[in-house]
Amino acid sequence: MEPGKKKWRFRGNRELNSAAITVHGVMEMLMEKINKDDNRPIIPLARTDPSTFACFRTTPVAVDAVAEAVQSFEFNGYPNTVGVVSARRAIAEYLSHNLLYEISPENVYLTIGCTQAIEIIVSVLAYPGANILLPRPGYPHYETRADFSNLEVRHFDLLPEKAWEVDLDSVEALADRNTTAIFIINPGNPCGNVFTFQHLKKIAETARKLGIFVISDEVYAGQAFGSNPFVSMAEFATIVPVIILGSLSKQWVVPGWRFGWIVACDPNAILQQSGILECIKNYIDISANPPTFLQEALPQILEKTRSEFFSNILHVLREDAQICYDGIKEIGCLTCPHKPEGSMTVMVKLNLSLLEGISDDMDFCLKLAKEESVTVLPGFVVGLKNWLRITFAIDPSSLDDGLKRMKAFHERHAKKL
Amino acid sequence: MEPGKKKWRFRGNRELNSAAITVHGVMEMLMEKINKDDNRPIIPLARTDPSTFACFRTTPVAVDAVAEAVQSFEFNGYPNTVGVVSARRAIAEYLSHNLLYEISPENVYLTIGCTQAIEIIVSVLAYPGANILLPRPGYPHYETRADFSNLEVRHFDLLPEKAWEVDLDSVEALADRNTTAIFIINPGNPCGNVFTFQHLKKIAETARKLGIFVISDEVYAGQAFGSNPFVSMAEFATIVPVIILGSLSKQWVVPGWRFGWIVACDPNAILQQSGILECIKNYIDISANPPTFLQEALPQILEKTRSEFFSNILHVLREDAQICYDGIKEIGCLTCPHKPEGSMTVMVKLNLSLLEGISDDMDFCLKLAKEESVTVLPGFVVGLKNWLRITFAIDPSSLDDGLKRMKAFHERHAKKL
Ligand SMILES: Cc1ncc(COP(=O)(O)O)c(C=O)c1O
Ligand SMILES: Cc1ncc(COP(=O)(O)O)c(C=O)c1O
Repeated sequence: MEPGKKKWRFRGNRELNSAAITVHGVMEMLMEKINKDDNRPIIPLARTDPSTFACFRTTPVAVDAVAEAVQSFEFNGYPNTVGVVSARRAIAEYLSHNLLYEISPENVYLTIGCTQAIEIIVSVLAYPGANILLPRPGYPHYETRADFSNLEVRHFDLLPEKAWEVDLDSVEALADRNTTAIFIINPGNPCGNVFTFQHLKKIAETARKLGIFVISDEVYAGQAFGSNPFVSMAEFATIVPVIILGSLSKQWVVPGWRFGWIVACDPNAILQQSGILECIKNYIDISANPPTFLQEALPQILEKTRSEFFSNILHVLREDAQICYDGIKEIGCLTCPHKPEGSMTVMVKLNLSLLEGISDDMDFCLKLAKEESVTVLPGFVVGLKNWLRITFAIDPSSLDDGLKRMKAFHERHAKKL
Repeated sequence: MEPGKKKWRFRGNRELNSAAITVHGVMEMLMEKINKDDNRPIIPLARTDPSTFACFRTTPVAVDAVAEAVQSFEFNGYPNTVGVVSARRAIAEYLSHNLLYEISPENVYLTIGCTQAIEIIVSVLAYPGANILLPRPGYPHYETRADFSNLEVRHFDLLPEKAWEVDLDSVEALADRNTTAIFIINPGNPCGNVFTFQHLKKIAETARKLGIFVISDEVYAGQAFGSNPFVSMAEFATIVPVIILGSLSKQWVVPGWRFGWIVACDPNAILQQSGILECIKNYIDISANPPTFLQEALPQILEKTRSEFFSNILHVLREDAQICYDGIKEIGCLTCPHKPEGSMTVMVKLNLSLLEGISDDMDFCLKLAKEESVTVLPGFVVGLKNWLRITFAIDPSSLDDGLKRMKAFHERHAKKL
């Protein structure tokens, strides 16, 4: 201790600093590389947030519902913790649409984006000794929260050669008596795949056989624009208990509103009897909740948004997916094993042996950011080293521009034969 | 195991269920007692949420700022995690107003109400072996979150006979080498007191002597209507590092907006060097954040709200405090040791020996709810058994009605001499 210097007794909780690499952290590193002297616009192919592009503008129906709720001066009071009844009922009805049973509004919990939904469900499952099954590649916030809660994670593979279906054999091999749940993301981030009815059913049956339940992240619900229609895992809740995670972020293109939900599809009251629903409620009771006026606006948003809004978004996504798939074919060092048919992202494999002086996916992305002002997510962040995750949900002409710059980058760094 | 019944492997994380009694939980119990056949309105003296009363209506300035931000369609994208720069700067300037140093926007973190600010700061201090000092009586969310994080809590007393000042001798006796911080709430919930400049300075000096820092919950900032003006602990950050917690909830009477902040007053960069600020950032990086449009509306709200709005609210609070103080004097079993001069609540002592068939504070509150449709918080929830916390921030005529009903209740249950 330096003489004359005051001794203080506090420090930060270092455990909090050991959290895994976040998309956010990698994004910051990429942005630092951007060359300020490059006059071209930055092409953002790393983040799934198309809200700033005119073709992805949200519907005025949603905006008006929120503005009206605020301007009524009626919804300034504290919400009750799990959410206002009208909003919970609206979501229950919205999701019960195609089902053979009804989701109870009691089983709907409002959250701050799907991000908080993930935090809650992971925390609720994090009891000593337990483990969960997560997809690889996947969405890294799951790993981050599991890490934070000291919950053991086991990864099963998604198979690129099988349209990124779940490797169900490996699921059976991974699970043991302490496994509690299998997580899926459908439509898929990062792979851009959409599971078939048959495959979802098989996942449900496998889970049932193992005695575990299914958590289905359907944040991209409805965003299927290929040959497989979107089917919700909720349809299989008579086989196995299902928890659906969702939000307004992607479907309404308002990720900044931070509004999501957890929905327990529990027609046989198995989740309820397990104590999991009570835990969710208890966790939410002592956590942050979404603003009351947003909750109150929700029924209007769900009921009044016209189907044209969704079909227009799908139209742009379909066009983008095609541009992306075609553009990647032109770039020698990249291969796309499966044309994207849903969500906003696709995984492409990087062939480093064709490149000179690029050591790995991170190195590729850092140099690409620096030389071409294009940001792409290195695959290691989502669990596949030396792959890339490309977000195609931006306006089509910018996407085209970005892919051309990636091609130029490839040509500049290609090994001379 | 019943034959033929499927065995499931999952259950809830029971640790989550051991959380302390919440205000919310007690409120639910009180509401269940309300007699549906009582045609009189319920008088809510348990919860600090006056937003539904016309005299506590928020300012149109704030409402318009939010509606405009939503309707611009410009702020639908993800916020960056710690908060948008303009909002952080606006808060830094707002709080730097009377200070001899400047708060850096970098040291401002936006949160989902002061509730999440409490969660964050408690989590950041929850390293193994550490302990914190909390006031008794206090705001129970601190205990709940400390419990959740396995952080040891030691309670110092607020002294009713000394205008609810901190018992600084007991603070010195409680602290040891593992103590990291002392928490205060000023203006005070639940006591309705306002610390003097001199007393705040003494708290700062005591903390400095102990080598710990001060966390000041100033969610009721500015809401002082007695003889002591409100002084922020930020003024003493040159003596000891200070973290201020605040929100829009009380000052703007919009608790449902869920918007708050953590502000590190760290002119000597001590908190920064301790690693605490980095921890706060890391925690926020993986947590829920407030909606972007609310963040963007904040500068307008802070800059444009007219002083008349605040003085009108203060005027009602002052009138309420007087009605409350006078009304309590009429109720034989209650004594108020200190007339409220700030915040929205006051503590009154219950003399059970004057009552027949009332076993304790909880029993009193349950029977009062049932017989008179008046809800009051039992003192044990805030740390003082057989006291009551009365929220006076409702419209004055309802408050008067509520106190009359409490008087009738007292008379009905008073011991016959
Ligand atoms: C698969 C997946 N789950 C969850 C989220 C988080 O959703 P939200 O923006 O609603 O918090 C995302 C965001 O990109 C996502 O891709
Ligand atoms: C002392 C104190 N701190 C924090 C809070 C929570 O504030 P917010 O509503 O901004 O989450 C309250 C709410 O009553 C309070 O009284």
